[in-house]
Amino acid sequence: MNPLPNIAWIGDAATGHLRLLDQTRLPAEETYLDCTTVEHVYDAIKRLSVRGAPAIAIAAAYGTVIAAQQGPDAAPQACDRLASARPTAVNVFGALDRLRRVVPPTPDALLSVAQAIHDEDRQACHAIGHNGLRFIDALPVQARGVLTHCNAGALATGGIGTATAPMYLAHQHHKPFRVFADETRPLLQGSRLTAFELAAAGIDTTLICDDMAAHVMQRGDIGLVITGADRIARNGDTANKIGTYNLAVLAKHHRIPFVIAAPLTTFNPDTPTGQDIPIEERNPVEITNAFGKPTAPTAEQLPGMNTYNPAFDVTPAELITAIVTDQGVIQPVHQDTIEQHLQLN
Amino acid sequence: MNPLPNIAWIGDAATGHLRLLDQTRLPAEETYLDCTTVEHVYDAIKRLSVRGAPAIAIAAAYGTVIAAQQGPDAAPQACDRLASARPTAVNVFGALDRLRRVVPPTPDALLSVAQAIHDEDRQACHAIGHNGLRFIDALPVQARGVLTHCNAGALATGGIGTATAPMYLAHQHHKPFRVFADETRPLLQGSRLTAFELAAAGIDTTLICDDMAAHVMQRGDIGLVITGADRIARNGDTANKIGTYNLAVLAKHHRIPFVIAAPLTTFNPDTPTGQDIPIEERNPVEITNAFGKPTAPTAEQLPGMNTYNPAFDVTPAELITAIVTDQGVIQPVHQDTIEQHLQLN
Repeated sequence: MNPLPNIAWIGDAATGHLRLLDQTRLPAEETYLDCTTVEHVYDAIKRLSVRGAPAIAIAAAYGTVIAAQQGPDAAPQACDRLASARPTAVNVFGALDRLRRVVPPTPDALLSVAQAIHDEDRQACHAIGHNGLRFIDALPVQARGVLTHCNAGALATGGIGTATAPMYLAHQHHKPFRVFADETRPLLQGSRLTAFELAAAGIDTTLICDDMAAHVMQRGDIGLVITGADRIARNGDTANKIGTYNLAVLAKHHRIPFVIAAPLTTFNPDTPTGQDIPIEERNPVEITNAFGKPTAPTAEQLPGMNTYNPAFDVTPAELITAIVTDQGVIQPVHQDTIEQHLQLN
Repeated sequence: MNPLPNIAWIGDAATGHLRLLDQTRLPAEETYLDCTTVEHVYDAIKRLSVRGAPAIAIAAAYGTVIAAQQGPDAAPQACDRLASARPTAVNVFGALDRLRRVVPPTPDALLSVAQAIHDEDRQACHAIGHNGLRFIDALPVQARGVLTHCNAGALATGGIGTATAPMYLAHQHHKPFRVFADETRPLLQGSRLTAFELAAAGIDTTLICDDMAAHVMQRGDIGLVITGADRIARNGDTANKIGTYNLAVLAKHHRIPFVIAAPLTTFNPDTPTGQDIPIEERNPVEITNAFGKPTAPTAEQLPGMNTYNPAFDVTPAELITAIVTDQGVIQPVHQDTIEQHLQLN
């Protein structure tokens, strides 16, 4: 059900390399990047050729194998470098910590761990899909629409995605539902990636602009909102793509369940609340000149002109109906139920 | 304070024509369209070269003068044609009704009415600005940001705009505030037009994507949301650019005043509620290929792929804190206060 092979290790551990689907070129072009150095991998993460917290972790894991091909000292340095590419996704740190503990850090040993991380993510996606199916089964007959934001899909993971996993399984089981995909400005992961991969899988998908979500809810078309997560704090506050909090507020107003789908690796018990999650700010040019031509005046043209481009927002736990993980469902969402789910007590 | 002459009649009534700033080319190019036939005017409205309910009404009014240059029978037909260009803005119908009542419909007589409509709109904008200043004066010290959506600015009217009018006057009076402008997908009137005209006037303006509004409110930066309107029903339900209802829900959740600014001509007592307002749906290509390159798969490429592109949404009266008109302020907003304001009782 994975429409495109987004992450693959090519060749053996000693001389092989990482092949990534360049997601910045979708849907117009299906282009692959062959990464043969750590800097290639770092750049691919930085410029979002590979994106989505699980996929970044897998790519970074393979990146350490490439480093180790240069000698045993290079892998730990590569871990530090790759961890710095994007600061919000926490499971990248978790994956790299596992690779740091490989002694000695030979290409063979690191590749074996990287492939395990890749396989585990594939299985986690499937488990999330299985555990999340109940929310699609519970869709009201008159509101079979599932709204999602950004891409927490197959393209963002090593498997069938996180937020999309219940959709792929529901489609496989011929359950009645349809998907609404927010286009997700500024980088349009919803239109370029989510609408692309779901429609390619034969799922009835309707693309809308982000500012249309409230109207579609008001019409009564939406019975469920489900998104991925980049980091979940100990109290349940969840960082995800900018615009997720927007949907959570709208869902509450329209009494629609708002569900987060994420593997256990997305939880960070060391982050007490959402206020402790760093929010990456990106280049204003993504807003002012995102499509190869000027779509707004720039600060150079007009001195009064500013741009604010946060990549993530934080949805407070009290707006989240449930969190679906590879281990089950957390509902209601608060610190006690999360600690119980993570077996921290 | 009007940064660009967006609508002008050039020459005398018998041989003159309408000159429009082509707003589809902003901010990259300042290009003017010389409309010498009714079809030129119709096309300019249809393809949004001129947009904003008051500006459309003024352009349509001048369009009837062009028609009358062909003979006395042409003006009434032109009214029907121009009224059909965009179905949601109600003041266009009101303006054209005034021109239909001109007997005989000579170019001189029609031009005199069209110029009166233009002048009245300029004065209405100024009065809206004056009446709306109280909401900028009331901004909390720690939340001086005013959020607006789409362009209800000078470019949308014959004067200093509707939603922007209090901003222009507040800036003139050196009051402390800043503006956040939603970019307003799919056609980016917020980035291309609002950010452009406000920053050009020296107002501190920050452009954000539509899906960032909730996050900016959560940070505490916004003390007021103010937008224009395309049609206000008798009970106060208000149609405006898609995404306005989104902001109204977010404003309620964050306890931020949500204000509509519009001239009296925007009210339509014959429309009982928002459910009676027709919502224009536009071409999916505005979403899938809006910037001259594909930003999403199309239905031709992938059969499961659909697009929904409503141009407007309806904000229910109960989410509107106040409506600022050229005659005063309606607060609270419900059918009784509106009927009283319109002196319908």
